[in-house]
Parts: sequence; structure tokens; C-alpha cells
Amino acid sequence: MKALVYHGPGQKAWEEVPDPVIQQPTDVIVRIDTTTICGTDLHILKGDVPAVTPGRILGHEGVGVVLEKGTAVSTVDVGDRVLLSCISACGACSYCHQGLYAHCLADEGASGIGWIFGHLIDGTQAEMVRVPFADNSVYKLPDHVPDEAAIMLSDILPTGFEIGVRYGRVKPGDTVAVVGAGPVGLAAMMTAGLYGAARVIALDLDANRREQALSFGATDSVDSGAADWREQVMAMTDGFGVDVAIEAVGIPATFDACTKIVRPGGTVANVGVHGAPVELALQDLWIMDVAITTGLVSTNTTAMLLKLVAQHKLAAERFGTHHFALDAMIDAYDTFGRAAETKALKVVLKR
Amino acid sequence: MKALVYHGPGQKAWEEVPDPVIQQPTDVIVRIDTTTICGTDLHILKGDVPAVTPGRILGHEGVGVVLEKGTAVSTVDVGDRVLLSCISACGACSYCHQGLYAHCLADEGASGIGWIFGHLIDGTQAEMVRVPFADNSVYKLPDHVPDEAAIMLSDILPTGFEIGVRYGRVKPGDTVAVVGAGPVGLAAMMTAGLYGAARVIALDLDANRREQALSFGATDSVDSGAADWREQVMAMTDGFGVDVAIEAVGIPATFDACTKIVRPGGTVANVGVHGAPVELALQDLWIMDVAITTGLVSTNTTAMLLKLVAQHKLAAERFGTHHFALDAMIDAYDTFGRAAETKALKVVLKR
Amino acid sequence: MKALVYHGPGQKAWEEVPDPVIQQPTDVIVRIDTTTICGTDLHILKGDVPAVTPGRILGHEGVGVVLEKGTAVSTVDVGDRVLLSCISACGACSYCHQGLYAHCLADEGASGIGWIFGHLIDGTQAEMVRVPFADNSVYKLPDHVPDEAAIMLSDILPTGFEIGVRYGRVKPGDTVAVVGAGPVGLAAMMTAGLYGAARVIALDLDANRREQALSFGATDSVDSGAADWREQVMAMTDGFGVDVAIEAVGIPATFDACTKIVRPGGTVANVGVHGAPVELALQDLWIMDVAITTGLVSTNTTAMLLKLVAQHKLAAERFGTHHFALDAMIDAYDTFGRAAETKALKVVLKR
Amino acid sequence: MKALVYHGPGQKAWEEVPDPVIQQPTDVIVRIDTTTICGTDLHILKGDVPAVTPGRILGHEGVGVVLEKGTAVSTVDVGDRVLLSCISACGACSYCHQGLYAHCLADEGASGIGWIFGHLIDGTQAEMVRVPFADNSVYKLPDHVPDEAAIMLSDILPTGFEIGVRYGRVKPGDTVAVVGAGPVGLAAMMTAGLYGAARVIALDLDANRREQALSFGATDSVDSGAADWREQVMAMTDGFGVDVAIEAVGIPATFDACTKIVRPGGTVANVGVHGAPVELALQDLWIMDVAITTGLVSTNTTAMLLKLVAQHKLAAERFGTHHFALDAMIDAYDTFGRAAETKALKVVLKR
Repeated sequence: MKALVYHGPGQKAWEEVPDPVIQQPTDVIVRIDTTTICGTDLHILKGDVPAVTPGRILGHEGVGVVLEKGTAVSTVDVGDRVLLSCISACGACSYCHQGLYAHCLADEGASGIGWIFGHLIDGTQAEMVRVPFADNSVYKLPDHVPDEAAIMLSDILPTGFEIGVRYGRVKPGDTVAVVGAGPVGLAAMMTAGLYGAARVIALDLDANRREQALSFGATDSVDSGAADWREQVMAMTDGFGVDVAIEAVGIPATFDACTKIVRPGGTVANVGVHGAPVELALQDLWIMDVAITTGLVSTNTTAMLLKLVAQHKLAAERFGTHHFALDAMIDAYDTFGRAAETKALKVVLKR
Repeated sequence: MKALVYHGPGQKAWEEVPDPVIQQPTDVIVRIDTTTICGTDLHILKGDVPAVTPGRILGHEGVGVVLEKGTAVSTVDVGDRVLLSCISACGACSYCHQGLYAHCLADEGASGIGWIFGHLIDGTQAEMVRVPFADNSVYKLPDHVPDEAAIMLSDILPTGFEIGVRYGRVKPGDTVAVVGAGPVGLAAMMTAGLYGAARVIALDLDANRREQALSFGATDSVDSGAADWREQVMAMTDGFGVDVAIEAVGIPATFDACTKIVRPGGTVANVGVHGAPVELALQDLWIMDVAITTGLVSTNTTAMLLKLVAQHKLAAERFGTHHFALDAMIDAYDTFGRAAETKALKVVLKR
Repeated sequence: MKALVYHGPGQKAWEEVPDPVIQQPTDVIVRIDTTTICGTDLHILKGDVPAVTPGRILGHEGVGVVLEKGTAVSTVDVGDRVLLSCISACGACSYCHQGLYAHCLADEGASGIGWIFGHLIDGTQAEMVRVPFADNSVYKLPDHVPDEAAIMLSDILPTGFEIGVRYGRVKPGDTVAVVGAGPVGLAAMMTAGLYGAARVIALDLDANRREQALSFGATDSVDSGAADWREQVMAMTDGFGVDVAIEAVGIPATFDACTKIVRPGGTVANVGVHGAPVELALQDLWIMDVAITTGLVSTNTTAMLLKLVAQHKLAAERFGTHHFALDAMIDAYDTFGRAAETKALKVVLKR
Repeated sequence: MKALVYHGPGQKAWEEVPDPVIQQPTDVIVRIDTTTICGTDLHILKGDVPAVTPGRILGHEGVGVVLEKGTAVSTVDVGDRVLLSCISACGACSYCHQGLYAHCLADEGASGIGWIFGHLIDGTQAEMVRVPFADNSVYKLPDHVPDEAAIMLSDILPTGFEIGVRYGRVKPGDTVAVVGAGPVGLAAMMTAGLYGAARVIALDLDANRREQALSFGATDSVDSGAADWREQVMAMTDGFGVDVAIEAVGIPATFDACTKIVRPGGTVANVGVHGAPVELALQDLWIMDVAITTGLVSTNTTAMLLKLVAQHKLAAERFGTHHFALDAMIDAYDTFGRAAETKALKVVLKR
């Protein structure tokens, strides 16, 4: 089959590779019908994720059809159209029992699993993929949910919802600020309404993204580059700050911004992937009754979010701004890699 | 001033009565600008609530302006436009400290307070009203929230939300059935989305009400008089039943219906006012991991719901179907009393 | 091997049967070292549980050693000393994902699983047993936790804790009444302290059981046959009733008693197995903000309770009042069947 | 009357001052029978809390008798023996309604209240004290709860419980590490059992304090100055770290230690008062699903903790290691100020 193979920092190719095969009784083989590219894939290509070694097929998002299944797989059958989760989970360890699939302790030729596709095992930017622990990692799709919507449930929507909205403890009536209006920030904005947010403020440096945010659930937007950005946010509250500040960028400045706008009793939910430490103003925060949360998506809300997509309560398909054929993978990477210029949110690749 | 006075079963009059006066340092006197009539008022008029004695001014919903305040009132000032809550609360007893204002232990010339307006003390269907424990019982209104919307926050919206949606433990993705599409049932439907319900099924015998329900948040409706009503509901689920069944009628048959459609692990939230015991099929239910909840509104979510109304996230004003001048109180009672025929949801009376 | 076989109402025998064999890749075969008898086994023997057909080996509690395992079992190995849970669960269905293992949807030659040992498949009152879905149904035991303590984690302790204490929403400072001081009631008393109950009131007709309750965590006891039993309970509260009333008998009178002593805002947690409907005084309860819960144990707290037993925070072994050799099964049934007379709580049978 | 007056950094005196008088209808005047000294008082005396101005009577803990009450006070009467909370709260603002009394918005001659005794208004190290907002700030004491136990409920026990144990989300079976075995750390250890902690690890540099910790609820202790302190802690877990790490010192090193021993999915609850920022290793923590919480006690659990003290479930009186007459205040400060040497936990001063 063909697949997008990582050949070390800066190097990738859409090339012929061996077809995947069943290795464990809990595996399935899935034909990829739809996949996409994540910001993390770009990080890997820069060499920022050393655990990814040359020869690895990238990608952790996908929709497709089950071609083959191991003897212990009970929840899906050959021929089923399924959503692949970016997180693989055994369903039996102590972390899986508490729903923290990202920290699954099962051994799949690696020390613990969780996010392994396109990371520790071959991924979904390919014509086929082997899916370990299929019973806990794939979801049968209702016929009327299109691939273009379902694919957003592999990673982006659960990430924004679980790590932003739920860890942020959004509750009815809340004012929520989301710092960073990229795909994951937008996913948090789109799902903040699931807990009844009254006001959702999008902060970003980019005018186009702020504009876009208003159609993804934000009720207000603030230019985070403005000298008075903080005053603007505070003026949208009762003067004490926002109930929830969601960090969706991953740099010290945006994290710091969140701690400066959160109200006493509020929450800073960090969704961004950080590469450096931050300074925490604990001399001010100790007295403020705040919680600061972090996390990697566990996709324990995927089945639930799928119900909402199926009921047209979440317009998941709106994230797909550019469409490609699967074998135009290199072009898709190019478009996604120049997102500021192409205004790409998610690129959708279809078989 | 003029007020609607109860003179024993079946008898009421819009008549001259003495103006209210400050009795405690925690009281305020409010000029009523807008009020409405509740189904409970009709029950009182039938003589169903013996605690209400002849001579009592009825009504527990209102919007108006503070005319005078006691020396210990700190949260509102004379001239403020305020919402009156149907529940009065001292803010200092053990029940108030847990937010269960309906069970407030304070003594206001009665054994405990909570719902006292138009019940144990004079109410809001009048030109003026004395409000005890004002600091915990009135809410200052933003200028841009009209009386017609605010008045629905005195009772109906918090009741549907607190006793139906919150006690029902509605969570994102849930399928919720509401049995009874009267005003309170509709309030539950309108607010079920605040916790992300995916599907809201309205059950009622009346075709007009079912139709109306679809514009108040219901996604589906079922004729509860149909022979196969249960099959219809189950077919809208995965076959195991609804996550939450909200009883909003108050008779054994509708309560029983709720216990027959709730799924294992689900909740039956009783909102209806019951006058008789029900038979509970504990021989079937003991194994089902269900919760059955009851409650009288505490209005501890009123301030929050007000934020949502102010942000146009809840179209509260839609409940007001008929409008009257305050001194057309008797006509308003007539229209509301024949709701099946007049299709009245809430009648709004304005000064 | 030898096993206790049900031969229809009133008939049982400790007799030779074929050894169990691995049937699915997710199975293990366990040698039973320790087992016990549950009140449910007595019900089955009376013919009260028609799903149990003649020829079935009874028992759903056990501790033993893994003799053989299927190819897909990853969490235990041959030779491991394990606790068997009374609930079998696939770990992959929607109910398992929410921790409601009692309602597991997996098909094991039956419509759904959950409680299947000694019910729908052969059980643990035998020299060996086949355990389906072993990865989610057995727990490796620390060396220093004796069988006599561990065996109480198969059913009784999780039942009292999950269905009584957790569903009862016990919280620090609460006054908790437990109606029925049999083994499961005592398990609720023993574990009420895990959520900081201040006062635990044991109600029972039997003086011996009330006495015993005081050594299992109860702080007070009341003779439920006394004319003033309710007044006695109310006098132990602030006059408004108990925060949590746990029903651990299973008849209408005890359920009704619970609804009469629960305070506004409190919870009635039904643990008892009921065979008949009850009358619910909804005309009084609708206004009281109470929750009534039911449930079958899911054993989703077994691993946690095991930690507490291992740390000597729960003296689980105290439930075992009578000890027998495994092949004295018939004697053990006799002693347990005459519990009122023998004062047996749990009988422990060891290989 | 006599009182302990702050006269600027390093200067204090037990001297004659005017008696307090009722200023608001919500005030009471309390005769102090028992008081104590907090570490915060020592900080004030060093000049670390500039909001405290010369002439201020210090102290925010106390037990006494109501001498006089304002016209709007309804929950206590003259002659009642009461506990004073370190936090004053109006009971009517948005923060009070959510139980965050520390952030009460009421104006008491200051911008917001909360902790005001011995800070923004005169405090409790005196023969009498004026208590604002008495209905929400004092608690009637049962006769059989001695002053020596009750006084620990003014601040220390609620602080350890609310900010350490509850914000730390301690749950049954948890392993909890408390870094710092001073009075507040010990209060967290004593109350960790209220949520069923299985193991409580005390970390401190001081051998005497570690020893003491074992009698206050700790099950294990670790010398935090040992080179392998972290390895020792990890060895007491399943290898992944503690469920909850409670910081009870207030310096960067101890906060950092907490972030290094918390497991994925766990919580760091900061109780310590910090005077400087800390470096947060977000490059490691972003993926760990942790929560970091902060807070100032709201004393919203005081009434509940009082029930547990009254039931002898919390041996609160054990904190009082040294006893003085009220007018030996200067000696008491000396003993408490040399706690490392005198081994003082709390000094108790009685009238």
C-alpha cells in the first residue's frame, strides 16, 4: 500500500510500504477512507518528537472500513464503517478504568500506550492501518454521519472539549476565554456551549482567525496583541475576570495571559503543548482559589460527541476547509503547513 | 393599593387593600411593574392549599422597582429595578448555606420560609409588595433585559432547570424525555441544552402543546395517549431507554411512565406537584441503577439564568402568550384558567 | 472436580462435575482456594430466581489461583493469586465505559452479562471455575492480604459501598441510617466512614445484630420494632432527619421507613433486593428535594477497596464468622441458612 | 479592655484599648474566652502584610460569648457561646452564594471582606471583639465541645481540609503526600481520612514534626531533606506517584517537590502562603492530566467539621500544645515564635 513515511527531520514521502497485518487477537485492520493532518505531525516533521523514528508512517486521525479482525475483537465486524480514535486503550488497566485512556498502561511494543498512532506504531496517513485494542479504540459510525464530520472526532473535538471545556469546569452561565483560535481553540469554543457557557471570548493575534471564531461559537473576540487586551476582556466580565481561561497555543506568554484574566474561583485549562517551563505568579495566585489543569486527550467523550454530531448539534464538518485525494498527501501537507496564508483549519484527505 | 385577594375556595377579588410597610430591617417594598399567574395560584383558588387563608394576596412572581428599604439591606437601593424570586431565603441558615433556599429555616411569622409569597405572606399580584430577606431574594436587573423576559425567572425557568434538568443530571449527549409540555415542562426543554442534551423528546396528550414543544427546545415529540407511546420513545434511544425522564404533570400515570422509559443508570426527575401516592415497581427498578429525584425550586440558579437571558441564550420572553394591564387581573385569571382552550402558556400583567 | 450443583428448588448437591475449560481467548481458569455463600444463593435454592436452571454450579464469590489463561488475557498470568469479582464485564461496551459493569452488554451465551457466576454460567462454589472477560473481572492480590479478607471484596463490601454509601451520596459530617444490619448493611456501615460520616445509626429488629453493628462502624443503634423507632432516629439528628437512609433488607416496610426519616435534601439508597412494588408517598416527598437510588453492584470500586484492605483501613476479615473446608459445603449452607440462630454473617470455605 | 496591638514591624503590646461597639445592625460583640496565634500573625509582625496598619488589634481565631447583638442578627442571641470564623461573609453576594466566603464582596470599611479580623478590622487577641455579618460568621457551640477543640475550627482545620483535602480532590483509597508538617499540614493529614485516604505520607525536614505527624493521621513519613526523598515517596505508590500532593510550606522548593511526585491524573493542592513566583515545568506537566489548585480558606466547612468534633471523630484539641492565660499574650507569642525549639503547634490562651 501507499503511506506517508517520516524519514527524519524535514523529510517525508508518500511511498509504497508493506500492508499491515493482524499481530494480536485484539487488532483490526482498517482501510482508510478519510484522514487529516494534525499540528503535531508538523512538529514531528521538524524533529521535535524524538520518539518518532525514521520509517514511521504518520497520522493519528482516520475514518474507514474494517477489513480484518483478531479473534478477541467483539465490538466491530469486518465491513463496519468506523472512526479511529487518536488514543489506543486496553480498557482493562487502572488508568483505563478511570477513563484516562491517554495514560493506558498496556504494553504494545512500547512502555504504555495512549497516543501511539504515527508516534510509536504506524499511523493513519496510509491506505490501511493496523489498530491495536480495537474494542476500545474504534467507534462504529451511523450511516448518516459523513466522513468529513466524523474525522474531526478522532482528535480535535475531544481535545478541545475534554482538556479545555471539561477540565476547565465550564458551567451554565460562564464567561469563557479561549486564548488561541487555531483548530483546537475553535473546538473548545464550539463545545463550550455543551455546558451552557453564556459568553465565549476568542483571543488571537490574527484578525482572520478572530473572525472565524465568531462562527465557531465565540460571542466576542479580542485582539491579543492590543495594548489593552486585558482591559477589554475584563470589561466583558463583571470586573473580576473570566470563569474559565483556556490556553490553546502552548507558549509561556499565552499561559501567563490566562492566569491574568481568570477570576477568583475560576479555572485555567491548559490545552497547548508546551516546550518550555513557565513562571507561575504564585505570590498572587495562592489566595485566588483557582485551579490550573493540564492534559492530553483521552477520547473518553468521543462516543458522546458522536451522538451530538449525529443529531446535528455540532457542525463538526465545518473544520474541514481544504479537501484532497488521499494520494495528494504531499500537497495537503503543503497547504496545512502554510495555514496562516492558506487559512486552512483542517485539510481533509479522501480515498 | 389594589391587589388580588383570596377569599376562600372559588372566591377572589381585585380590590383595595392597605399598602405594605417595612416590618424588618431586612425588608424592601417593591412597586410591581410586571407579574404573572402560576398554576399553583389556580390550585390555591380551588382550596387545595389550606395553608393559604382568606384575605391573602396571591402571586409569587414579579418584576418591579424598590420603593423603600430596611436598614440592613445592602445589595439593592431604592430606585433599583429588580426581579423578585418566588423563594425567600435568609442566607444564613444551614439550608441556605447549601443553596437549598426552598427549605430556609428562618422564621418570618411562619415555621420556616422558602415559598411564602401568596402563600404565608401577601404576594405579588398587587401594586406593591413587601419582600422579606431582600438581600437574598431579589436580583437587580440589567437595563436591556425586558420585564417580559425577567418575569419568567421568578419561578418557571429555575423550576424547570433546577428540579428537571439539574436534578435529572442531564449531561452532554443525553436523550431526555419530558412528560408534560405545560409551562414548566417547556422550561425544562428550553434549559436541557445548557447541559448539552442531544435529543429532547416531548410527551403530551395535546397536539398543540407537542407542536409548541418543538419550538421550545424539543427535538422530537410523542403523543403520550398513543397505544405505542413507549415503543416510540424507546425507538428514539439505543433501545435501552432515555438517560433522563422528567415528570412535569403531577399524577401517578405520568410518574409511572417515566419509570418505564428510563434506562439503566438513568434518572427520573419529578417536577410535578403530586396529591396522591404512587406505586413504585421496586421489584423491577432495584437492579436498574436509577435515581428518582424530587424537589421544590430553590432559585439558586436565578442569577445564572439571568446571565443567559441577558446574553440572548434563553428566549425567556417566549413564554408570555397573553398580555394584560395589571388591573385586568380578573380577565387574566380567566384566560389562564382556560389554557387548554386559549392556548395560554403564561399571561403577563403590566402596570 | 467437585462442585455445589443446583438441582431445582430445594435441591442441591456437592458432587463430581467436569472440569471447566477455556472457551474464549479472554477466559481464565481459576482454582478456588476460598469461597463463601451469599443470601442470593439461598434465594436461588428457594426457586426465586428462575433464570438459574437445574445443573448450574452456584456461587459468585471467590479467591484462588490462575491455572490457565486465554490468548487475549493480558493483566494476569498463570500462577497469580486473584480475587474474582461477582460481576463479569467486557470493558468495551458503553456501560463498561461508564463503569456500570453490572449492565455490561457483552454476550456470553446470554443476553448481557454483569452478574453471571452461579446464575447464567457455572459459579465459584467449586474446585475450579472458568472466568470470562478475565482482564476486567479478576484482581491480582498482594501477598499480605489474606483470603479471608479478600473474599469479602467479591461482592459484599463493594455492594454496601457502591449502592449504599456512594449512591447515598454520603459526605463528611453526615448522619447515616442503615436499615437492616445483615452482612450488606454492615458493609455499608463499615464503609460509610470512607466519606466521613459523623454518625451511623443501625436499625434492626434483632438485638444481636444491633450489638454487632456497633463494632462494624455504627455509632448508634435503634430497635426498628420499637413503637418510637422514628422518634429515636429523629432525636439523633437536628430534628430534620438523616442525611442518608440506606435500605438493606428488601421489603416495603423498610423502604417506607427510609422515606420517613430522610431529611429535605437527603437521599434514600436502596440496596435491598425487592420482590414486590412499594407505595411511594409522593404527595409528601415531591417537595422534599430527596433522591431515591437503586442499583446492583458494579464492583467498580473493588480495586480501590482492596487498597484500603491492604492498608488495614478496612477489617474485611471480620465478616467471616464461621469457617469450613471446601468439601463441607453442605454444612456451610446449613449454618448460613440458619443465620438468625447461628449468628453467622459470612461463612468462609477454604480448600 | 486589654488587647494585643500591632505598632509597626517588630512592635506589639498587650495594652488598654477602647471597648468595641456595635456599628451595623448585622454586628455582634463577643467576649473572648479562648484565642490563639496563627503563623500569619508572625508574618504581620515582621511587616510582611502592609495592609495591616499600626494600631490594629491582631488575631482572627476565637471562642467566646455574645455580649450584644445588632437588630438584624437572627441566628445567635446574647449569652450564646460561639465560635468565631477567621472569615467574615455577608451571605448575600455572588461569591457568598457559591460558598467562596473568602472572596465576599461586601464592603465593611474596606474593599471586600473575607479575612478581615486582625487585618482590616480589629481582631480576636483581645478581651472583646466586634464581629461583622454575625449571621454568617459565628457558629453556636454545643455545650460538650470544649473551647480547646472549638478554637481549632476558627482557621486551621477548615484550611487544611478545604484547601488541602477538598481542593486536592482526595477520594477513597488515595495516597496523599503532605509536604510540611506544621499545624496546617497536620490539619490536612487529620482530615484526609474524611475522604477515605488509604495512605498519608508526611514530608518534613524536622524529625520531631515527622514523628508528630504519625499521630495526626499520617501513615508514613519521609525526611524531605534525604537525597532519595522522591524515590522513597514513589516506592510507597504503585510507581506512578501520589494521587494528591498537598503543599503546606509556601516556598518554591516545596511546591516544586509536589509537582515531581504527583501521578498522571492527580492533584497538587497548594495551601502554603507564597511570597515569590515559582517555575512550573509545563513542558513535562502539560501531558500529565494534573490539576494545581490554590486557595484561601472560606470556612464553608466549619459547621460540618464542628459536627465531627462533637462526635469525637476529629481530635481537634490535640493541636493545642501550650496553654496560657489571656493576659500572658506576650509570653504566648514568645513560645509560638520559637516553635522549632518549643515544639509548639498551637498555643491556647484562655480568659
